[in-house]
This record gives sequence, C-alpha cells and structure tokens, in this order.
Amino acid sequence: MGTHTLNNVIKVGGAVVEDSAQLAILLDEFVKIEGPKVLVHGGGRTATQLAKQLGIESQMVGGRRITDAETLRIVTMVYGGLVNKTIVAQLQARGVNALGLTGADMNLVRAHRRPITPEGIDFGFVGDVDSADGAALYQLLEMGITPVIAPLTHDGQGHMLNINADTMAQTVATALANAAGATSASTTLTYCFELPGVMRDPADPSSIIPEITEESFSSLVADGTISGGMIPKLENAFEAIRAGVAAVRITHISNLQGGTVISSEK
Amino acid sequence: MGTHTLNNVIKVGGAVVEDSAQLAILLDEFVKIEGPKVLVHGGGRTATQLAKQLGIESQMVGGRRITDAETLRIVTMVYGGLVNKTIVAQLQARGVNALGLTGADMNLVRAHRRPITPEGIDFGFVGDVDSADGAALYQLLEMGITPVIAPLTHDGQGHMLNINADTMAQTVATALANAAGATSASTTLTYCFELPGVMRDPADPSSIIPEITEESFSSLVADGTISGGMIPKLENAFEAIRAGVAAVRITHISNLQGGTVISSEK
Repeated sequence: MGTHTLNNVIKVGGAVVEDSAQLAILLDEFVKIEGPKVLVHGGGRTATQLAKQLGIESQMVGGRRITDAETLRIVTMVYGGLVNKTIVAQLQARGVNALGLTGADMNLVRAHRRPITPEGIDFGFVGDVDSADGAALYQLLEMGITPVIAPLTHDGQGHMLNINADTMAQTVATALANAAGATSASTTLTYCFELPGVMRDPADPSSIIPEITEESFSSLVADGTISGGMIPKLENAFEAIRAGVAAVRITHISNLQGGTVISSEK
Repeated sequence: MGTHTLNNVIKVGGAVVEDSAQLAILLDEFVKIEGPKVLVHGGGRTATQLAKQLGIESQMVGGRRITDAETLRIVTMVYGGLVNKTIVAQLQARGVNALGLTGADMNLVRAHRRPITPEGIDFGFVGDVDSADGAALYQLLEMGITPVIAPLTHDGQGHMLNINADTMAQTVATALANAAGATSASTTLTYCFELPGVMRDPADPSSIIPEITEESFSSLVADGTISGGMIPKLENAFEAIRAGVAAVRITHISNLQGGTVISSEK
C-alpha cells in the first residue's frame, strides 16, 4: 500500500448495532471512510435478552459477562451469527465487501481461558488475548475486504471464548499497526459511543475536548474534568497508542471524523 | 495450483454436526483429506430446538423450512453462529486454518428471495441462488484457508436468506469447478449421510453400489433398486456433474473416500 495509507478500526457497541435506525446511521458513515477499514461490534443487549427468553440468568461482574457453557452458546449465536451477519448483509447492500469474522476464523486472535481471579471469580469461557495475526488481517484488507469482527475468539483447543468488544478492537488495531507490511501505513482506532466525544460538560455539546495527550489527560483527571468510566476507557486508548496505534478517537456514530482524538503527541 | 489438484467439497448434515461424537469422527476424517477442501454444513435440528424453546413453531413444506422474520433470526444465529463457529474452533484445534462463511460474506453467493410458489406457498426469507463467486473461493483455498460454509446467503439488499445445505454444497462445488484459475484442477463433491453409500439393500452393508453413471441410474430406477428420496439426491448429483463437478460421492462420515461415486462416465 502507498505511503499515505490509513487503516481505520471502528468499534461500535451493542446499543447501536441492535437498533436498526442507529445501525443504518453508523453504516452510512462507515461506508464513507476511504481506505482499508475494519468494524468491530458488540451485541450484549441482544445476548442478555435471548438468555432471558431461554430462562438463563445473565451474571455480570465489573461489566463483564460470566460465560458458562450455556451463555457461550448464546453469545456465539448472537455475536458470531445474528449481529455479525446482519451487519455483513447490510454492508454488502451498501457495496462494501464485508467478511464476518471471529478470532477463531483464520486463527486471527489466539487466547486462553481466563484463570479464576484472586477474588475467586470464575468468568468461565472468557478469553484473555495471547496474540493476533495482523499480517492475515492486512492480507484481507489488501484484497479489498472489510472485516466485520465479533467479540469472540478461541483457545486453540476447540472452544470458543467470549471477549470484550473494546478489547477486541484494541487487539485488532494494535495487530494491524504492528503487522509486517504495515510499516508504510498507520492505524487509527475509533470508539463510537453515545456522546459526541469526551466532554468538559456532558450537557453542553460545545464542550467537546478536541484532543487529549498523556500530559493533558493527567491534568484533566487531576482537576476532575475526566472521571468515572471515562478514565479506564482513556487508559485503554493510551495503551493502544503506546502499542503503535497512531491515534484513538472517541466520538458519536454520526461523526466518525470528529469527537475527541487521543494522540501520541506529548 | 498443479495439474493434479483436486478440490474437495464435503457436505455434512445437521444430524452429524449436532452430535459432538459424530462431529469429532467427521472432523478427524476431514483433516486427513489432502489438498484444498471446503466443508458445508447444516444445522436444522438445533434451529428447530431453539425455535421450540422460544415458542416459535417450525413449519416445514417438502422438507424446506418456512422462514419468517423470527425464524430467519434463529437460523442466522444457529447456522451462522453456533454451528459454524463450533466447527471452525474444532478445525483450528486440529491444525486446519478454517474460516467460517455464509454466502453474504465476501458476497460469495448471491440469491433472491424465493417468489410465492404457484401453490401459494410463501417460504419467506428463503433464497434461490443467482450466482456464486468461485474465483473468490479459489483465492481463499490458494491462501491455505479451509472455508466452512453455513447454509445462509443474502439478497444484496441487506437481508440474509436461508438456503438448503445440499443446494449450498452443490453451488459451491459448481462455482469452484468453473472458477477462473481452476482449469488445471478438478472438484469433487461428497454428500455425507447415515448409510455407507447408495445400497442395493439398506440392511446389507455389502450391497453398496460403488459407481453410478447416468446410464446405470436409469436402469437402477427402472428396476426399483433406487427409489424415494434417493432419486432427487442423485438427480442433484448429476446436475452438479453436468455443471462441471468431476464426481459426486455419497458416503458415510467415517469413510469419506468410500461409498458410492456418481461420475460423468456414461
């Protein structure tokens, strides 16, 4: 690829992909992105709803789903089947040559089952990532394919594993950024969420912070502007940047080029 | 690929893929096949079971599932998610670089929604195949990838469509046989089923008919040796052969190189 190639990894959560109107907005924006692109999606709400219909209780610990054998079947059906293929079909209808994937397909993301935590919590069939095959992803991009990736992977021993969609997006972006052949390209990671960006005041749309560096992040946390769940999200973003991702963007589905940019500039 | 390349398309029905012991037997045999290979699977029993758990009645007409919007969600989850990814993970564990696909992925199989039949039957979201991209499948095989294909495709307008797994296998084999670049290769199609092959007497394992040609087929039907559901199965086989597939085999999962061969020799 040319010297100015930019690989775009877009992560979108369940709330968007499970609402057909919002999904249409996202996909209309997604197709406008020029150059190689990857879509990583969630689907947790549909999984919880299907579990409920089947009389299976969804247990969450720290925002993560306890994945017993029955729950693994459900997330494999919902993330790998329903949500993934719905997006693929809708991208194909928009002229994008989408290919639905999990980390098991082409052995793209290898993981191991998370050990029982020191607190004694067994997350079940939840994966912690060992490695990802950026070269294989890169090959797909060079074939003009747009990977659509579900938050599932495998243990190499025949079991699927559930992983967090934010983690999958970070894994994929980092693998692409470090892939052989990718030296002349850079990779950006965009987290779509319900707000227009990281805000000084969530009630004031004009208060988007356009750029956050590691230095400004420290001050924004120190003065209380950034707090709560936004802190780990931004810590993840800086982790991706330290691992080679050129920039991380946090924005609304309707404005993929806008929002807040987390950059490596100090 | 070399002059002696043989592409193998193996179709296996729901009864096998939904029984973990039988699936293991099949996959152990499948990995032994040398050269490029494709696995096409069903999953109807699990779909029927999930529909029942969700209080949705499965309606079948002539062995084909009436696929309303709710049923489409179910088959997309079961075929495209649960069954497909379970097979992919288990092939990866056996060292086969499997990639799970539907006809929507990479736009491999284009179809249209089946019109209401002259008898007034609306099959719903059931697809009739328009075309298949043998060149794209071929490219995957040349990359060392083993496609695992669910009996689902799409209409190019954003909807997934349910198709019969036998039809998907025939479509895929025919597309490979006719793909550009495939001129130096031949493609065989293997239908796995519960018997060791086409039998003169289903109760006598030694009565397998090793080879059937169009000429011998006529006599076997005329004298009543072949009857019932085996007739359309063999007619499909001859259709594949007339469309360029080198041979069709009907055999048991434990003996992929055995059974009955339907060949183009007169």
